[in-house]
Formats: sequence, structure tokens, C-alpha cells
Amino acid sequence: MCRWLAYSGSPVLLEDLLFKPENSLVVQSKHSRLGVETINGDGFGVGWYGAQQTPGIYHSIEPAWNDRNLREISAHASAGRVFAHIRATTGTAVQQTNCHPFRHGRWLWMHNGAISGFPLLKRDLAVAVEPRLFPEIEGSTDSELFFFLALTFGLEKDPPKAIARAVGLIEETGRRHDVQYPIQMTVATTDGETTWAFRYSSEGHSRSLFHSADVSTLRLQYPDHPMLHELSDDSRLVVSEPLGDLRGAWREVPESTCLVVQGVREELREFSPASAG
Amino acid sequence: MCRWLAYSGSPVLLEDLLFKPENSLVVQSKHSRLGVETINGDGFGVGWYGAQQTPGIYHSIEPAWNDRNLREISAHASAGRVFAHIRATTGTAVQQTNCHPFRHGRWLWMHNGAISGFPLLKRDLAVAVEPRLFPEIEGSTDSELFFFLALTFGLEKDPPKAIARAVGLIEETGRRHDVQYPIQMTVATTDGETTWAFRYSSEGHSRSLFHSADVSTLRLQYPDHPMLHELSDDSRLVVSEPLGDLRGAWREVPESTCLVVQGVREELREFSPASAG
Amino acid sequence: MCRWLAYSGSPVLLEDLLFKPENSLVVQSKHSRLGVETINGDGFGVGWYGAQQTPGIYHSIEPAWNDRNLREISAHASAGRVFAHIRATTGTAVQQTNCHPFRHGRWLWMHNGAISGFPLLKRDLAVAVEPRLFPEIEGSTDSELFFFLALTFGLEKDPPKAIARAVGLIEETGRRHDVQYPIQMTVATTDGETTWAFRYSSEGHSRSLFHSADVSTLRLQYPDHPMLHELSDDSRLVVSEPLGDLRGAWREVPESTCLVVQGVREELREFSPASAG
Amino acid sequence: MCRWLAYSGSPVLLEDLLFKPENSLVVQSKHSRLGVETINGDGFGVGWYGAQQTPGIYHSIEPAWNDRNLREISAHASAGRVFAHIRATTGTAVQQTNCHPFRHGRWLWMHNGAISGFPLLKRDLAVAVEPRLFPEIEGSTDSELFFFLALTFGLEKDPPKAIARAVGLIEETGRRHDVQYPIQMTVATTDGETTWAFRYSSEGHSRSLFHSADVSTLRLQYPDHPMLHELSDDSRLVVSEPLGDLRGAWREVPESTCLVVQGVREELREFSPASAG
Repeated sequence: MCRWLAYSGSPVLLEDLLFKPENSLVVQSKHSRLGVETINGDGFGVGWYGAQQTPGIYHSIEPAWNDRNLREISAHASAGRVFAHIRATTGTAVQQTNCHPFRHGRWLWMHNGAISGFPLLKRDLAVAVEPRLFPEIEGSTDSELFFFLALTFGLEKDPPKAIARAVGLIEETGRRHDVQYPIQMTVATTDGETTWAFRYSSEGHSRSLFHSADVSTLRLQYPDHPMLHELSDDSRLVVSEPLGDLRGAWREVPESTCLVVQGVREELREFSPASAG
Repeated sequence: MCRWLAYSGSPVLLEDLLFKPENSLVVQSKHSRLGVETINGDGFGVGWYGAQQTPGIYHSIEPAWNDRNLREISAHASAGRVFAHIRATTGTAVQQTNCHPFRHGRWLWMHNGAISGFPLLKRDLAVAVEPRLFPEIEGSTDSELFFFLALTFGLEKDPPKAIARAVGLIEETGRRHDVQYPIQMTVATTDGETTWAFRYSSEGHSRSLFHSADVSTLRLQYPDHPMLHELSDDSRLVVSEPLGDLRGAWREVPESTCLVVQGVREELREFSPASAG
Repeated sequence: MCRWLAYSGSPVLLEDLLFKPENSLVVQSKHSRLGVETINGDGFGVGWYGAQQTPGIYHSIEPAWNDRNLREISAHASAGRVFAHIRATTGTAVQQTNCHPFRHGRWLWMHNGAISGFPLLKRDLAVAVEPRLFPEIEGSTDSELFFFLALTFGLEKDPPKAIARAVGLIEETGRRHDVQYPIQMTVATTDGETTWAFRYSSEGHSRSLFHSADVSTLRLQYPDHPMLHELSDDSRLVVSEPLGDLRGAWREVPESTCLVVQGVREELREFSPASAG
Repeated sequence: MCRWLAYSGSPVLLEDLLFKPENSLVVQSKHSRLGVETINGDGFGVGWYGAQQTPGIYHSIEPAWNDRNLREISAHASAGRVFAHIRATTGTAVQQTNCHPFRHGRWLWMHNGAISGFPLLKRDLAVAVEPRLFPEIEGSTDSELFFFLALTFGLEKDPPKAIARAVGLIEETGRRHDVQYPIQMTVATTDGETTWAFRYSSEGHSRSLFHSADVSTLRLQYPDHPMLHELSDDSRLVVSEPLGDLRGAWREVPESTCLVVQGVREELREFSPASAG
């Protein structure tokens, strides 16, 4: 399993997200509080929207706590939209092409969780990927294949609907192979403008997911907290686990929910799988 | 493109194969004489049959000339059957799961060449892989997929026939996608007892392939050459390019040929693709 | 801080030492029970005496639990003398030249602990290294420098005396720089014939160190334990922490002690620093 | 030996320096035209002045042509001052701490060439480093030690003088050890405001070094060349070898010369070693 964060808002240095918080993602790579594994040391990745249309990605197979280049890049790159992910493999190889976030054009994707019985289901799922997209699959993870299924079902047009159909297909395929609970997921995806985050699992007992409270509310609550005053009103974090203990700063995303973050607007929608057919 | 060697015979230290020859594979990694690329610096791999039923493999993404661990392992591991490969990627990622030799049970496989238009053909070829084998594919190369096609067509029972059918399928698939010359290959495979080596290309202009002359003949020719006297009569090398300039030591494997090496017996057979249907 | 093991006795596969025990070194790399850090994920190393006079070493900057090559090598290399070490850096870079065991000729050396205030002391200690040996220092750790001090003081002739003088110098140098407790150490070194292990710290509160009980006694105690019957009588392990819960199998090495293991003979001697002058 | 470039001027994307030129540094990593080695595949590094006082550095042990992260970072980071270096080791380990540029505070340093007989001279040179700076040495190269000698002799106050004294010391030390030509060098260093580049060798036959012609002159010469019109007048490159064949664009830096680039001002001064005493 893994841990991730999705940030959008005022441009910030990557290190403000990845290193400085008390329970930062780099801290979590060694000592996750809420994860299935306390160690997420099987590589990591960062995606950020900078000078280009296409976001940049940095993938590494070293544990995040060890990577000097991550520290350097984080101290020098700032962005208004950042995806970051630390990995604890469920068996597939530790290699850069298995590191999240995955990218397709302007889109980024990251996943915590697993497709159960993935070796059993892999071929059926791979065959369902749009033939034109198939050769772009570079790694061997369930997470990347899930991304390509979502792309196949129209992620770039209607993310919640495409992901509902991808999850529907995974559950149908799993059940056909006698897998009781085929999917466990928190997922984040973005086109660089809007972030969609999903919390769902076939067994109805999903990995943790939180989003940050409204910055203006927090400012009233903590008038002396300098960082909160530097952030624009539309700054938001969606995270696998809170980055610190600031009371009132974190709200749990409910089970079977899709959270949409677009500028200052945040919306929680019910999420359920759809038939892929 | 790539370079490789396949050794069978008296147990030798890996360094005697990989480092000591004048034009050793490690030398070739920087300065190949006959390769399409002079540099084969995109990772390498070694497979050897040792203490276990299953051969050991060592894969690295560093250039072979740089890898200190390769030097150490080569100085301490000896084996009577060794496959070694240096890689020059034709585009797929430099990662351990893309390094040759590939392994399935007791079988090893390595390839120099390419499937032309691979992104176009990849899905059709992947779908042809036996579903039971499909989830074992770990990397993203044409070479590994070719191996799984050969396994699908019965490599473990009749290698020349299985490979003929795999090549047949690749050529049919390629032509369906308007690829003029779908395959370029020298391939080596072994079950730990016999080595099969193939030289073939759709255009009839294949990468170089050589095999060593009979050791007993060489001993007569070079009575003062110490190394030749240490080797047993059944010691054989099959290589992408000669490891040195010893006159008479290397014979070119003809185009469209399968070379079978089993103990002292060596056989050259004509090779041509078979219909995969 | 780190964890290590030193084995001598009947030739065993490396995997029997590194992977198979319940609390194997690879398990400890993620979940050390007695270490200062539970995670020892900052690289590792193995040294083994095989075909050559000089032992082989394999160093990696990946966490031991992730390294596929370690698994392969461990399944195929067997040796009658093995040193293995997992690293948790106290600040110096994660790079192969900082991985233990360190080697000089036939000698191996590994260390758990630290020289306190190392940046302050480093130059004075480096200058004390025999000029002829100085250019062989490849990494930046306190542990390697400690090794070169021991070599300077005659490790190859009288290890306990050389190490006593090296520790004496480290303590004198530390105190001159107002470091209260200059050294914390468990150290193992071998020439391929004898293993010397040391447990000492300036504050008299040293990291844990254990050695295995006599195999013949264990056999009487566990008549049905197959592994114990395969090992020769002189098989011994010295470890940072027990590899399992077999009652009676592990004895703590006392504080300020040097343990000498040579064939079936084991000797505990008092250890105290000597003046380096 | 190695290849490097030093850029100052209008902010540019790193990829415009590292990937886009016809004979870019990444091209040179595989096929250097003027280098002692055609392959510079033993790691590389980039330093750039961005958001912080201190420049960022990215070091990698992979060949530059293979590193996907370099491509990503280069497409997203822009800077008005960039140092980049590709390495061909003369024997020391391929590890990040041996990659150039080296950094101390706001200063960067990179070197092509070698200190001859370095193992012989290393200890004497290391002892000459200011004790306060000594523990900052992280790698094992002659180039980094040369940097620390220059810092010891006042690099931060008067770079040409400090480097003259460092070179003086290296030559005196070398001659004491019977090394005929102790140093071969092109060096670049910067404090983020000014770049100093040096071409010198004890034998008076130094590695190649070029600087770009005045941009305004080039614009007159090539009125239709778009890139030249985007660059500010003070944009300058100093390089081991020209990045392309634009006639008149590159001038050789003479032997025994220090080139100072500060804004639009460029100055060539004679350089000769000074007594270090």
C-alpha cells in the first residue's frame, strides 16, 4: 500500500509539502501512522505543473527519506498543483515505471490500494484497454493498468463516470475469478485544473482519506499561524493521512465518495461503480 | 540493439568469460566492433546454472563497465553454463525487468535485435500469450514478449518449432500492420542442458552471430595456448561477436539458421518461420 | 546504526543466513527488534569467502528487502564464512562505498555504532592513518576510517591489540574535542580463518551482541530440529540480534568484550582501549 | 576525463542547454568529439540558481542519455545560470558524491582533467585543506579535493588567486612525488554572479575550452536565427567543446588563461600557478 498527497492553490515550494510538515510525506515514508504498512520505502514520485503544458514527473526507486535529489528539487521547484506518492509495493518490481504519479498528456494519476488477485485478473483487464493506449503502458502495476482503464472509459471527458466504469469492470472481472473484494482504492487524478479524489473499496472498508478545511476558516481559528496567511483562499490538500495535528484542519472523506476540488469550490459526491458494459 | 554470449562446458569463473578476453563482453559494452551501436550501456544481465535447479540471474541498469558488483560476482561464481547480455535499448525503459536473460523455470532467453513497429504490434502479440503465462511478464520489451510467445508455442517441448511459430506470428502480425521487416533477431535459449541459438531476420540481413570452433582442433592449432588446455572438449561459446582475434577460433553462423549445442554435439539446422495458426 | 551477522562453519547458502531465519537480517532491515532504529534501509552488504583468496563483496544502496539481485545471489552462492550488514546511516551518504563490510586484502570489517562528533574528529583521525593506506579510503563513514585506523595499528598481526589502540586513539581524540562518549561499537573482523567480534562503548552501555550456542549442545536440546543436524560442530554465528526465538540458542556477549571464534574454539576476552601513542 | 558547460544570461530552460543543441552535452555523453574519451557515461550533474540563495544540484550515476528524470527536470526548470557536467571516471567510484558540480554555500565548481598520480598525492593534499572544511569532503575524487584546496586558499575572496595557489600546491606536491605533469584542467567556478573559467595543464597541452561569441555580433551575422534573438546581450556559454557548428559562434580559450564572465563583460587573463606557501 502507499501514501499520497494532492495539492492545489498558491504556488508553493515542493519542500513545503514534502519535507516541512510535522507528518510530511517523507516522514510518512518511514513512519506512516495510518497506513497498512508503516514503511513506504519502495520508491516514490512527484508530479508538478510548471513551465510546460505537460506536468513534470520525478520518479525514484530509492526510499524518499534517502533521496538527495528529491531534497534539491523540492527546494527549488514551486508549483500551484502537486501530486506526490510514496510506494509500498504489493509485489510488483521496484522500478521507476512502477512509481506514481502516472502521466498521460496533461493528466496525472495516483493510487493507494490494490486490485486483489491481480495476477489472475491482469490479462482480462489489459485486453479491455483501448488498443491505441495499450503500448503506452510501461510498468507492471495494477495502479497503472487501472489508470489506462479509466482513460479507456473516458477519463479525459468525465472522470467520475470513467472511474466508475473502470471500477465496475474490475469488480465484474474479479467476481468472475472468485475474488471476493476486487478493489481497494483511494485515487487522485487531475488535468491540471481540477482534482478528483476517490475513496472506495469493494468491502466498504476503505483506506483513509482526508482533505484540508477551508483556509479562510482556519485563519480565523489560528490567527497567529503564519503559513495559513500566505496561502490563497483556494489552497487545498487531499491526503492519505493528515500532515500534522492542527485541530480542525483535516476532514475525513467519507466512504464511497468522490471529492472534486476546483479553485475554491469543493464538492463531495457519492461514488459507486458502474457497469462497464 | 545488444550483444550477448552463451557458454557451455567445463565450469569457468564468470570473469573468464566477461572480463578477461581481449574483446570481452564488458569491453564490447563500451566499444562493440560489430554491433549496430558501439555502446551497449543500457544495463546488462548474467544468468548461470549453479547450486539450484533454477538458474541465478543478476540484472543491473548500470553500464557493465561500471558495475563493481558484477566484477565481484564474476570473480567468485563459476558455472558450466552461462548466458550474458549487454543492452542498448531501442526505446523501452532501462530497468532490471527489461534486462536479459529472461527466465522461466529452468529456461533462460536472450535476444539481440528488435520487433519493428513494436508499439503497433504489441497488443496483438500480448493477447496471443497463453493466459496462464501472461501475468509473469514483468517488463516492457519486445524481447521478453517474444520469449513468452515462444513459451506459449511450446518452447519447453520443442524450441526450434516453438520459435518458428512465434516468429511466424510476429511476421504475420507485422505484415497486417504494414511493417515491412517485422523481426530482426539473434536469440539464445537454454534449459540448462542444451543451448539453441537462432540467426534470422525478415529482411534476410541478420545481426552477426558466431560460434567457437571445436576445442580439440584449436588445441592442435595452438599447442602453447594454456586456456585451451584447461577446457573440456565440450566447451562451446556462441557470441554476437568474437571475443578475440585467435585465427580459426570463430565460425559465423549462417543466415536463417538454428544452432543446437548439446555436450560435444553441435548441429546447424535451417530455420524458417512457421505459421502460428 | 546498523545490524550485522558473522557466520563461520559448514558451507551454507547465503539465503539460509539472510532470508530463511524467522528474524533474518532481511526481516531486521524492515523491523529490527533490538536496534536503535527499527528500519535499516540505507543500503547493505555481504562478504563471503569463495573461490578466491580475496573474499567477494556485494554492496547495494537499495534496502535489503527490495534487492532482487541479493535474493538471486543468496540462492546460488554458498560459503563457509559470511559477513552481512544492513545499514541505517547516521548522516553520511547512501552509496556503495559507504556499505559494509569493508575489505582490505583478505580482511573484512563491519561495524554497528558510531564515532560521536565524527565531523569534528574526522580530520585528526584521517591524518593518523598510515600514509600508504590513506588513498584506499573510498567512502566517507566513521566505520571505514575506524577500519583503516585498526589496519594502521596492526590489525593484520594482532587484531585485539590493534583495535584497542584504534579505540584508544578515537577516545583520546574525542575527549580533546570535548566529546563525552566518543565511541559506540560492535565490530566484527576476519582474515578468512578466525573471526574477532567486539562489544564496547565509551559510556559502558553498548549495542546488543549475541553469539550462537555450541551446535552439539543444541542438537541434544532439539533432537528433532533438522537444520542443526546439517551443520558441522564448528558452525557459529555472531549477531547484533538473535535470528529467532530458539531457547538457549543465543548468548549475550558481555560489555567490553572481545569474542574470538576459530573453528570449534570460542574465547571471550576482556576488551579495553589502549593508548595509541 | 569529462565534458562540461557553464551558462549565464537570460533565464533558459535547462533542456535548451542540455538536450536541444546539435552537439548537446547529452549527445556528448555518448559521442564526444573533442574529449579524451568519446563516452562520458559515468554519471553527470547539473547545478542551477533558482528560487534560493543556494543553487540546486541534481547528481546521477546513470549515463546522462538514459536518465528520464534529467529530461523531466530539464523541461521544467529554467535558470539564468547553469553548470552541467558529464563524467568519465579516471578510476574513482561512480557515485553521486563524485559527480560535479560540487557545491559549497553559493559556490559551484566543476573540473575536466585530472591530478596525475592522485593516489600518491592525495594524503598530502587532503592535509592541506583547512581543518574546518575537511569534514565537508564527501566523495573521493581529485576534482572535489581541488575545490576544497581552492576554498582553503580563499576562493570566495579572489578566485584566480586562490586557484593559482591551489594549482601551485598540486604541482609542488606532484613534483615532490616525481610526477612529471601533476595537473591537467579546465575548471569552472561561480558564486552565482560571476563565472571564472580556467584552462591550464602542467605540460602546456590542455583540454579544449571554448566560449561563445558576443550575442549581438552573432545576431548581425545570423539575422534569421530565432534563438539568438531571444537571448539577452549578456548571455554566454563556456564549454569543453562547441555545442554546434554555427560559424563564428565559438572562440577557443587560450592555454594558461582565466576567463572571467560578469554580465556583458568578458575578460581573458593570463593564468599561472602561484606558490602555495
